[in-house]
Amino acid sequence: MTTNEKIALLRKAMEREQVDAAVIPSSDPHLSEYVPDYYTARAYLSGFTGSAGTLVVTKEGSYLWADGRYYIQAERQIAGSEIQLMKLGMPDVPGVTKWLSEELGEGQTVGIDGRLFSVKFKEDLEKAFERKKLKLSIGHDFVSQVWTEGRPAMPGEPAFLHDVKYTGLTAAEKLAKVREKMDKEGAQCYLISALDSIAWLLNIRGWDIECNPVVISFVLLTPDKTYFFVDEKKVAGAVGEALAKAGVTVLPYEQVYETLGTVQGSIAFDAGRTNCALEAAIPQGVKRMPMADIAYTLKAEKNDTEVACMREANLKDDTAVTKFLYWIDQNVGKMPITEYDVGDKLIELRKEQEGYLGEGFGVIAAYRANAAMMHYSASKDSCAEIKPEGMLLVDTGGQYYEGTTDITRTMVLGPITEEEKHDFTYVLKSAIGLMSAKFLSDTYSGSLDVLARQPLWDVGLDYKCGTGHGVGFCLNVHEGPQGFYRSAMGVIMKPGMITTVEPGVYKEDKFGIRTENTVVCVKDEETPYGGQFCKFEMISFCPIDRRAIDPALLSDKELEFLNNYHAQVLEKIGPRLNAEERAWLAEMCKPMVK
Amino acid sequence: MTTNEKIALLRKAMEREQVDAAVIPSSDPHLSEYVPDYYTARAYLSGFTGSAGTLVVTKEGSYLWADGRYYIQAERQIAGSEIQLMKLGMPDVPGVTKWLSEELGEGQTVGIDGRLFSVKFKEDLEKAFERKKLKLSIGHDFVSQVWTEGRPAMPGEPAFLHDVKYTGLTAAEKLAKVREKMDKEGAQCYLISALDSIAWLLNIRGWDIECNPVVISFVLLTPDKTYFFVDEKKVAGAVGEALAKAGVTVLPYEQVYETLGTVQGSIAFDAGRTNCALEAAIPQGVKRMPMADIAYTLKAEKNDTEVACMREANLKDDTAVTKFLYWIDQNVGKMPITEYDVGDKLIELRKEQEGYLGEGFGVIAAYRANAAMMHYSASKDSCAEIKPEGMLLVDTGGQYYEGTTDITRTMVLGPITEEEKHDFTYVLKSAIGLMSAKFLSDTYSGSLDVLARQPLWDVGLDYKCGTGHGVGFCLNVHEGPQGFYRSAMGVIMKPGMITTVEPGVYKEDKFGIRTENTVVCVKDEETPYGGQFCKFEMISFCPIDRRAIDPALLSDKELEFLNNYHAQVLEKIGPRLNAEERAWLAEMCKPMVK
Repeated sequence: MTTNEKIALLRKAMEREQVDAAVIPSSDPHLSEYVPDYYTARAYLSGFTGSAGTLVVTKEGSYLWADGRYYIQAERQIAGSEIQLMKLGMPDVPGVTKWLSEELGEGQTVGIDGRLFSVKFKEDLEKAFERKKLKLSIGHDFVSQVWTEGRPAMPGEPAFLHDVKYTGLTAAEKLAKVREKMDKEGAQCYLISALDSIAWLLNIRGWDIECNPVVISFVLLTPDKTYFFVDEKKVAGAVGEALAKAGVTVLPYEQVYETLGTVQGSIAFDAGRTNCALEAAIPQGVKRMPMADIAYTLKAEKNDTEVACMREANLKDDTAVTKFLYWIDQNVGKMPITEYDVGDKLIELRKEQEGYLGEGFGVIAAYRANAAMMHYSASKDSCAEIKPEGMLLVDTGGQYYEGTTDITRTMVLGPITEEEKHDFTYVLKSAIGLMSAKFLSDTYSGSLDVLARQPLWDVGLDYKCGTGHGVGFCLNVHEGPQGFYRSAMGVIMKPGMITTVEPGVYKEDKFGIRTENTVVCVKDEETPYGGQFCKFEMISFCPIDRRAIDPALLSDKELEFLNNYHAQVLEKIGPRLNAEERAWLAEMCKPMVK
Repeated sequence: MTTNEKIALLRKAMEREQVDAAVIPSSDPHLSEYVPDYYTARAYLSGFTGSAGTLVVTKEGSYLWADGRYYIQAERQIAGSEIQLMKLGMPDVPGVTKWLSEELGEGQTVGIDGRLFSVKFKEDLEKAFERKKLKLSIGHDFVSQVWTEGRPAMPGEPAFLHDVKYTGLTAAEKLAKVREKMDKEGAQCYLISALDSIAWLLNIRGWDIECNPVVISFVLLTPDKTYFFVDEKKVAGAVGEALAKAGVTVLPYEQVYETLGTVQGSIAFDAGRTNCALEAAIPQGVKRMPMADIAYTLKAEKNDTEVACMREANLKDDTAVTKFLYWIDQNVGKMPITEYDVGDKLIELRKEQEGYLGEGFGVIAAYRANAAMMHYSASKDSCAEIKPEGMLLVDTGGQYYEGTTDITRTMVLGPITEEEKHDFTYVLKSAIGLMSAKFLSDTYSGSLDVLARQPLWDVGLDYKCGTGHGVGFCLNVHEGPQGFYRSAMGVIMKPGMITTVEPGVYKEDKFGIRTENTVVCVKDEETPYGGQFCKFEMISFCPIDRRAIDPALLSDKELEFLNNYHAQVLEKIGPRLNAEERAWLAEMCKPMVK
């Protein structure tokens, strides 16, 4: 079927259900960042396969919103169809909400599948719709009517237990912590639909979403019950027994809507992380208590067991990455290697590490100018060959029972320009600026961001993305609420929080540089005229390519930080390598002088 | 009358009006930071004269909330009365809102004078009251019933015009800008009650509040009229003529409530800067459009004429302050000088400057350990004598037709300790860290704060207040919305914004150090891989006492910044001094070396 034929089918469904505009998003009922293939309806309908984007179909036209990463790809993939591209971020292009409220006629109806939109989005939409009295109707499953053939099945892989030797706390203990918070806030019930929160809370993991070891499910806590709504086949055997022991009652996945119809008193949920069909299923008389996802907030502050495990997971992973850096350094120019091969090699080396479960995200291996595209992804059929010149950027991470890793190194493969060396050194200054920060224990994570940007700003450079994100524990590689970006302004950086530091310089058609370490926040000294301070400790140990560093541009403090870091890399990773690799690493970690 | 007798009278009024708890704040109907004596009812009723605090009276008890600055003073001033002190900021002391919602019985009524509370405060109160179904009643003028004798009159000084040669824009032009924004937002009417916004908008100034050259009034813009509600005697003659020329209709001050009852369509106002009695006077059917005060936001970005004037105002003021620094350096130990005398001397020197209108705030002159109290204020009867040892902190500012100034210097008077020298140097590093910042043009002012704190945090120090505040233009010394503190996180630092940078170290019973300059945000370079940058330019030029600086603790960049700054001080202020003063200044501004 062509795109236009699919849209024609959609319009028929819209007509049957008396809807003037339909909105098809990229999300699933858990508002996941990455979704199972079953939920890729926006891609199916529009032909555009990017990770983010929204399709709007009216009686007269079809419109696809895509952001700057995807302008070119989207343009290409919708070519020949009736869809018009809406370039999100361009000054004269309104967002979906604004567009709908401007373009639709007085009193018209917008239809959505409420399961795929957050409560907050729905509220914002309704507010924008007030002026022209537009109607929002949330009960429309258009996709099932249009995508009748070849739709992938819902994932059905069995879940597995995440042992307390990794998690530090049992599911029962975590549930007690959540209930303690509910009591404090006066919430009688609590609904969780975010998959990372659920996996953490119940100490289970699964294979429902590629690279994200979650189990598609909902959790509802009532005053005396903990309901887990999930495909029951996934939790047969040991998993089911462990859940029963933790006092968890398993119910069919779809039953969550029905059970929500029976809750009483008050119910808490995160309006940004809960779909609005769930909210609509709660009886009118029940008091809604929107609040930050309790489990999400609790799990961000890793306990001592988790932090110790994360350290070990990173040492394993850094060993694999260091072995890779050695391998490419030895082999570039001697054998054909493409960007795509780099991913294969990294997976091969990771598989040698005990407890490796899979990738945390697809390897980003970007050679020379390709690295200037922040979300570049090489495919087997379309990727650059790596030669002994310029630089290679590798951004990669793995899943282990002991945690999730995320690291980026930009590697010198041959001659580089003075500009590359200058910018590489400034990216290093930027990373050190944040990694070496000492800050009061009530500091917002978002407000530390400027410490990384300042060195780059001084020389007129910047990167157009956050400086770092929270990392899950054998879970999603992107997990908040903390982060080094503007929207994390209200989130205090607390001990146990694990976050990446990843500044960069991206020069279109020239090169891209990113240096990324994962760090953990720990308590530092308490002083009489300051208070309780915190600082970051390194979790990633992997050489930063000294061949691209100009030590003359570093302050004494920065140079000391670098040399001290490299000494630790050698000490921690050296013993995990073979003799040749170790000798090479010793060279890569030699102290630098001005 | 004793405090208890006054409270007894208040309780009688409460009984007549069937109110269970009355809240008496420190504010006026314009929610000013400083209020005319007429509105100092909280001080009259409680005996506590501090600038901030709230009195709550119930049938059973009386409670005064005061913050850390005032614990000791409040304790002393309420001693012997029935009032209990509530130490705001202490971990186990709830705020007023929380206390009321916890302590009052189900269904009880809280009575306030709505003219003294913001719309936002009222909304927060109502929200907190929901649980126990407490009632909020806003029409109670208890104060007039209790304070019947000796109450100061409402201020009645005439207003004066602020010439366009200072303001750069006429009132008519400013009104047009406000209306442009109203149109953009779709607001038909717009209400302004903040006095600084009104003074700016109409290019008038007055003497209604000490140190703050404002005119007590309201402004209401309707689709075809601009109403100015003010005591008509204040705007007789030239002022009234100029207002009429700008299309402004003058109405009696109290008539604002009645006129608001006639507005139609929609009305915009700032919920944090508008009292809730005004909001209550707007007819039910009129659409409320809470938004940031348009005039407040516009006036924060000073135009070129204003910036040029502010530079001149500061040069005049810095000349007076430099003369003062010379005077005290020459005379300390040779004649008796108290902290109080310092204020007198500063005023005497300022009066020599053309266009000086008065103080911008009472001089803070704090010697040695007194300077550790951030809001120390010496009085004639109780102040320290200044000797040739230790340091003297002077925080001072003036009002000129050309603008408002604010500067702090901590001056060495004799031997100081190594600790004082160390901390002084670190305060300087902190100030330079922020003053020398280069930042992208969309950076939040609040997020720059960390650049000042970082050097102090590094050595375990901090100051428990913001790093700096916006400054008015021949107006209030504290004017937002920008600032270097947490609540200014969402406010972008824009070209033309004038802000103080004033880090410090305060060690109880030992010493206090603060170095404060006023700076203006200007455009810096635009780069291909960064974007449009901004930076700060100095507006204050006054020597920073090099006798307390340890150059070994400064980086090369910091030392260069300091020496460059001092060269400018000498160049700009030197020619305005006599020969002896100039020779002294040259010594104070000599370059330092490591």
